[in-house]
Amino acid sequence: MRVLVLGGDGYLGWPTALHLSDNGHDVAVLDNFARRRYDVELGVESLVPIEDLPTRIAAWREVSGKEITGYEGDLLDADFLFATLRDFRPESIVHFAEQRSAPYSMIDREHAVYTQHNNVIGTLNLMYAIAETDPGIHLVKLGTMGEYGTPDIDIEEGWLEVEHNGRKDRMLFPKRPGSFYHLSKVHDSHNIEFGCRVWGMRATDLNQGVVYGQQTQQTSWDPRLATRFDYDGVFGTVLNRFVIQAVLGLPLTVYGRGAQTRGLIDIRDTVDCIRLAVENPADRGEFRVFNQMTESMSVRQIAELVAERFPGPVQIEHLDNPRTEHAEHYYNVKHTGLVELGLKPHLLSDTLIESMFDIVGANKHRADPEMMPPKVRWTAAADAKSEIS
Amino acid sequence: MRVLVLGGDGYLGWPTALHLSDNGHDVAVLDNFARRRYDVELGVESLVPIEDLPTRIAAWREVSGKEITGYEGDLLDADFLFATLRDFRPESIVHFAEQRSAPYSMIDREHAVYTQHNNVIGTLNLMYAIAETDPGIHLVKLGTMGEYGTPDIDIEEGWLEVEHNGRKDRMLFPKRPGSFYHLSKVHDSHNIEFGCRVWGMRATDLNQGVVYGQQTQQTSWDPRLATRFDYDGVFGTVLNRFVIQAVLGLPLTVYGRGAQTRGLIDIRDTVDCIRLAVENPADRGEFRVFNQMTESMSVRQIAELVAERFPGPVQIEHLDNPRTEHAEHYYNVKHTGLVELGLKPHLLSDTLIESMFDIVGANKHRADPEMMPPKVRWTAAADAKSEIS
Repeated sequence: MRVLVLGGDGYLGWPTALHLSDNGHDVAVLDNFARRRYDVELGVESLVPIEDLPTRIAAWREVSGKEITGYEGDLLDADFLFATLRDFRPESIVHFAEQRSAPYSMIDREHAVYTQHNNVIGTLNLMYAIAETDPGIHLVKLGTMGEYGTPDIDIEEGWLEVEHNGRKDRMLFPKRPGSFYHLSKVHDSHNIEFGCRVWGMRATDLNQGVVYGQQTQQTSWDPRLATRFDYDGVFGTVLNRFVIQAVLGLPLTVYGRGAQTRGLIDIRDTVDCIRLAVENPADRGEFRVFNQMTESMSVRQIAELVAERFPGPVQIEHLDNPRTEHAEHYYNVKHTGLVELGLKPHLLSDTLIESMFDIVGANKHRADPEMMPPKVRWTAAADAKSEIS
Repeated sequence: MRVLVLGGDGYLGWPTALHLSDNGHDVAVLDNFARRRYDVELGVESLVPIEDLPTRIAAWREVSGKEITGYEGDLLDADFLFATLRDFRPESIVHFAEQRSAPYSMIDREHAVYTQHNNVIGTLNLMYAIAETDPGIHLVKLGTMGEYGTPDIDIEEGWLEVEHNGRKDRMLFPKRPGSFYHLSKVHDSHNIEFGCRVWGMRATDLNQGVVYGQQTQQTSWDPRLATRFDYDGVFGTVLNRFVIQAVLGLPLTVYGRGAQTRGLIDIRDTVDCIRLAVENPADRGEFRVFNQMTESMSVRQIAELVAERFPGPVQIEHLDNPRTEHAEHYYNVKHTGLVELGLKPHLLSDTLIESMFDIVGANKHRADPEMMPPKVRWTAAADAKSEIS
């Protein structure tokens, strides 16, 4: 199948492109290299060194004998986007090309506006490009479990059978997102559901949990194929950050009491979920949603697990939670859709964490501990000043 | 109370500003005159001639002895917006400053992108301006009944008590909006609910039905105070359009069979709903939603009512529905919140339609019948071409 991976130079986009290519698909990647620019802006780098896209593509050709096509450009540039679709003629488009950090979106007004503009308008352009070039293209869109928030009811996969005053309807699951980033994905989901309803688009929305890990089968074949590994307070995600803190001999920093719960997924499962979605497309007119996560743990439990598995002393430290979220809450997520398509989850009880200790150990001279503390507070705008009242 | 009306030069913004000023509030209006530019773009004009904003403000001073302050600028210009809030120091902000036509948003990609960018980013800037200057400002935001779509269950006022698998939560009512315009308002609502939750903003979201009528008590005092009256296929709304067709001797054009149902509201009730919301603000941290409509009718019933009341022969013609919507559907909307605050609805059984016939009769030489048919089809993007498949 011809698959175009948007954001194919990023943390998950690149390993996904390799996994699809290795599984016999004809793959192209499109990227505007925004993620590399955020590093420059924030003064931080991937813990594991990464090559530029042409080098990565050349290395993949050398290692696998397979070709990946590269397109450099931006979804906000509609002419470029339409031209790419006409040139590559994808049957499926995997869409990772969004600003994906909640703290980044909460830095200030400019970053909130950037995030919602980049994500929502980029996706709107993509919807038009699909509708006007080939409405049969299957859109596989990355969402996030953070769109749902933490409701007091079970979280279903995107849709909810609602019974109210003796009548019933199947409706989009009501969401309570936790940042302007998470909100941008909720906006995308509503826009795409409309495209399915009105234009007969076919789409799979993957509400992904927090991804951990750095290696997939394919990226491990050559150091030039490595994907990025973020540890900073803005782009680093919770389990990865704890592993790095353990190796560096720093306390694991739990925000608040740590009873807030996250859905988690191994990077190897992420790339296979995408493959399964691509190989089993949604129907025309269908807005299909899967919760792309394999297990739930509280932040405190994740810290304890890393501490327990690390071969050395580890401290756990509690910081004020910079986010506005429930300290303790119900969390029961349905995630059977991808398992029914064939996913064989790697759970945290597997050996992955140990291999992460090795990867971090080999690169720990590259870490800047100054970059790790949370510096973005969710309430900053309203706390900052109250010049009038 | 000091009230800033965003979009205060528009169809409803201007009469709202007058109604608030007449009721003793200290009013300013802010506008970028986008609505007047859409007229130029589409080659159409308000059926009733309207004055420019400085002339309107001068006429109001002359007629009422009251002062309205005018600010010319754009919500997308954050510096201007912050400066305006610091200058006028509003206690309440009424937000009409959005592109408000569903057909306009569905013309093509550029218009969809314009609508979502203008509405969502403008509102995001406004949220930051409120949070950073005075989080105690009450935001009164205009939404639309079209955000809900036509679910098979009763439509509550913004929130829904959900019971699922034996557990309960109060959640945002799940919406199924009918155009990129309606979607932009859903995005706004999610963003604003987050602002209430995280920054302690106070907001009232008014999901308004289709407004009909052209005169309010205050605009009738002087022809220079008149508000616009749109009859074209892009900005004209259903009842107003039927009245104009009747007076011009044209058939009333019902889209499809006309069994699709709309919530309706008299323009005099709109301005009073805004006053009631302003004078009874939401609490800090509260995201309050009202359904701002007073009755429901099918499009066919509205046409029959106009035909029955018009003193002359009227034909009803059925056109293919350019929109994608349910031809026939359940529609039961709760709208008690504003009545509880004191709204005394004007229903269609009042005399208003007859006065509309007079207004249209006096201006019928200004109407261009060519502008009335619907020219924007909802499925255009996907029908247009399929160059690849």
